[in-house]
Amino acid sequence: MNTIRYPAKKDWPDILARPAMELSSLDKVVQEVFKRVREEGDQAIAEYTEKFDGVKASNFQVPESEIEKAADTLNEKLRKAINTAAFNIEKFHKAQIPKDIQVETMPGVLCMQKAVPIEKVGLYVPGGTAPLFSTVLMLAIPARVAGCSEIILCSPPLKDGTLNPAILYSAKISGVDKIFAIGGIQAIGAMAYGTQTVPAVYKIFGPGNQYVTAAKQIAARSEVAIDMPAGPSEVAVLADETSDPVLIASDLLSQSEHGPDSQVILITVSESIISKVQEALQYQLEKLPRKHFALQSLGHSKIILVSDYDTMIEMVNAYAPEHLIISTNNADELAVRVRNAGSVFIGENTPESAGDYASGTNHTLPTNGHARAYSGVNLDAYYKKITFQKISAEGLKNIGPAIETMALAEDLTAHQRAIAFRINKLKNQ
Amino acid sequence: MNTIRYPAKKDWPDILARPAMELSSLDKVVQEVFKRVREEGDQAIAEYTEKFDGVKASNFQVPESEIEKAADTLNEKLRKAINTAAFNIEKFHKAQIPKDIQVETMPGVLCMQKAVPIEKVGLYVPGGTAPLFSTVLMLAIPARVAGCSEIILCSPPLKDGTLNPAILYSAKISGVDKIFAIGGIQAIGAMAYGTQTVPAVYKIFGPGNQYVTAAKQIAARSEVAIDMPAGPSEVAVLADETSDPVLIASDLLSQSEHGPDSQVILITVSESIISKVQEALQYQLEKLPRKHFALQSLGHSKIILVSDYDTMIEMVNAYAPEHLIISTNNADELAVRVRNAGSVFIGENTPESAGDYASGTNHTLPTNGHARAYSGVNLDAYYKKITFQKISAEGLKNIGPAIETMALAEDLTAHQRAIAFRINKLKNQ
Repeated sequence: MNTIRYPAKKDWPDILARPAMELSSLDKVVQEVFKRVREEGDQAIAEYTEKFDGVKASNFQVPESEIEKAADTLNEKLRKAINTAAFNIEKFHKAQIPKDIQVETMPGVLCMQKAVPIEKVGLYVPGGTAPLFSTVLMLAIPARVAGCSEIILCSPPLKDGTLNPAILYSAKISGVDKIFAIGGIQAIGAMAYGTQTVPAVYKIFGPGNQYVTAAKQIAARSEVAIDMPAGPSEVAVLADETSDPVLIASDLLSQSEHGPDSQVILITVSESIISKVQEALQYQLEKLPRKHFALQSLGHSKIILVSDYDTMIEMVNAYAPEHLIISTNNADELAVRVRNAGSVFIGENTPESAGDYASGTNHTLPTNGHARAYSGVNLDAYYKKITFQKISAEGLKNIGPAIETMALAEDLTAHQRAIAFRINKLKNQ
Repeated sequence: MNTIRYPAKKDWPDILARPAMELSSLDKVVQEVFKRVREEGDQAIAEYTEKFDGVKASNFQVPESEIEKAADTLNEKLRKAINTAAFNIEKFHKAQIPKDIQVETMPGVLCMQKAVPIEKVGLYVPGGTAPLFSTVLMLAIPARVAGCSEIILCSPPLKDGTLNPAILYSAKISGVDKIFAIGGIQAIGAMAYGTQTVPAVYKIFGPGNQYVTAAKQIAARSEVAIDMPAGPSEVAVLADETSDPVLIASDLLSQSEHGPDSQVILITVSESIISKVQEALQYQLEKLPRKHFALQSLGHSKIILVSDYDTMIEMVNAYAPEHLIISTNNADELAVRVRNAGSVFIGENTPESAGDYASGTNHTLPTNGHARAYSGVNLDAYYKKITFQKISAEGLKNIGPAIETMALAEDLTAHQRAIAFRINKLKNQ
């Protein structure tokens, strides 16, 4: 990791910059796949699945029998661990159920807001080297808690056409209604437009590679909503002389093992901890199965030494990390000053792994600085909030004149008359 | 208005379809303007302002003195009306302030969620035939209530380079920090990337024409968040034999006067009201200043007769209108069955004009069927929700094994070790 000492504030933007993600070069391929999925439906899905996943399949929906079997084939220990995580995720997301709001803004003018679950949601769970069953829990449990009436899931098939049993088991206990062994752009297209077997949904959730991300962005321009723009995973760790270099190193490696493009930053007020963390990294790296990924990620990662805690927090808020681990004795004090981050891990006993899997918080979080404006996935993401208003005769008399004046000032005469006709009618009653 | 009687359900999608909005043809011009704004800043803004607005300006920020003056030049009646609306909007949005959430998911595993205001927001208020000062209130008041620390506003200059005093006055009382007389793609570019005088923001709100909408969509692919995709305004009105045809017609015209592309639908269970509404429309149209817009809009608008209330509600939920006016005696019963709509107006005394201006609900709402997945602008839109977790030694012992099992099952060894190192350390303490 490169060490930068006391950088001038004018250099922060360069130091904290992420690699540029220019996905518009993928638009053409996304649009082509979308067009074929819209026009040919399942037939197009079958061809792309054979081309990209090497799987010949005519039926993409995982049969109920296979899902049932997954629970039996999964080892007991993993099943219990998944159940524990599911319990915690459900508990934390249930606490987020929004309350209806009702306010009489003026006498007789009643305004209400009601959260109504999005009826149809589609979840995307990437394939790749490992089965990301934890993402199934993170995306599906809140959907069930919110009360979405149709929850579907797409994930690319393994070479034999199936999905990993841990994914199937997680989907089953989370309340997913239909599971499809479809991946990539074609999965996003299928959920956005619908095919003979895949129902169209109103919102698509989930991470993915750059093709999936570009596909979600393009789908979001017209057909459906998406959770957030996705990018490479990130962590910022805050340390001082009270921090344990071994634990700090383990957290940095947790992030860097995700992939070569993972973003890892250590911000510290302690000079002396830097060499100790570097040593611990060397030692822990040696035994890491995904060492090749970690090494590439650490190659562009940074240790930044700052002069005081104020600067540390200012830098964190400027960077807006997806994950923020505060591994200092004063972690509580620092945590309350965080303005921009996806999820915050307070104190030495709270590694990112906890939130990645099982503490109860969601691990689908804004990357690439989006934490400045986006929330991670939370229960809100599965609702839309509808407003209602009900005005009594008295209320209309109270509020009507202001509306008429404003409508005329905006040259919208019919808006004014909709009030005037009603007030006249009330006068004549 | 075209009347359709008892349509078969298979024909609903065609009947309820909106005109296709294909904005990607505008991408090239947006990208060109964005590139110049990024590279040349204010110089590019000046050139585009001269080209598109016919205004030569070197300073786009409206001076404090001009804003102060606006309050004096505005007539007393309009000022009071704006104050009334602002009061109600503030009251309803204050009721939406989210509470912090704190849950111990397992003994020693504390999960929290905190809403933190987005620091920098940019509001876009379109120009055009009338000054949309009501949109200023709708976008800026929630930003101030949420506690956004920098609120800026862009709106295209009038021919003399100024902004309408009603816009300036509304911005002032809503707590806008800086006002810029900049419109169109260049305004979105300025707020997304920043220039010498316009600060870059983290989220852009507000309606606009197709150029502004395309610009927001492209900006949202990388730099900033946006409120929602915008489209032509819409209303669905529900009527039965208890409804007043004159009031129904006034509501239909309120929507259709917005512009030729406004979407207006009347769904009724009463055959007899149809001709009465048509008559009232004819009568009211004659005296309408914006008759030319209303006629074009009504030309593609529909009256749909259905057999019962169940079908009526099913059709509304399939259409997902931006505005829904329920002008029947059983409006309350029908309102609780609405699943997809932006804002709902309950009963004869609650016209859309009320919510457009002053009841307190927001008028920035999802169009084009997006109400299936998007909320209208509400206080949530000005926050991001950050999660926090804090695990005690006891908590880590409780939750650690499940995390280790799951991490290994996802082939993420460093994630497992981040737990193992900590549990070992606790054992040795």
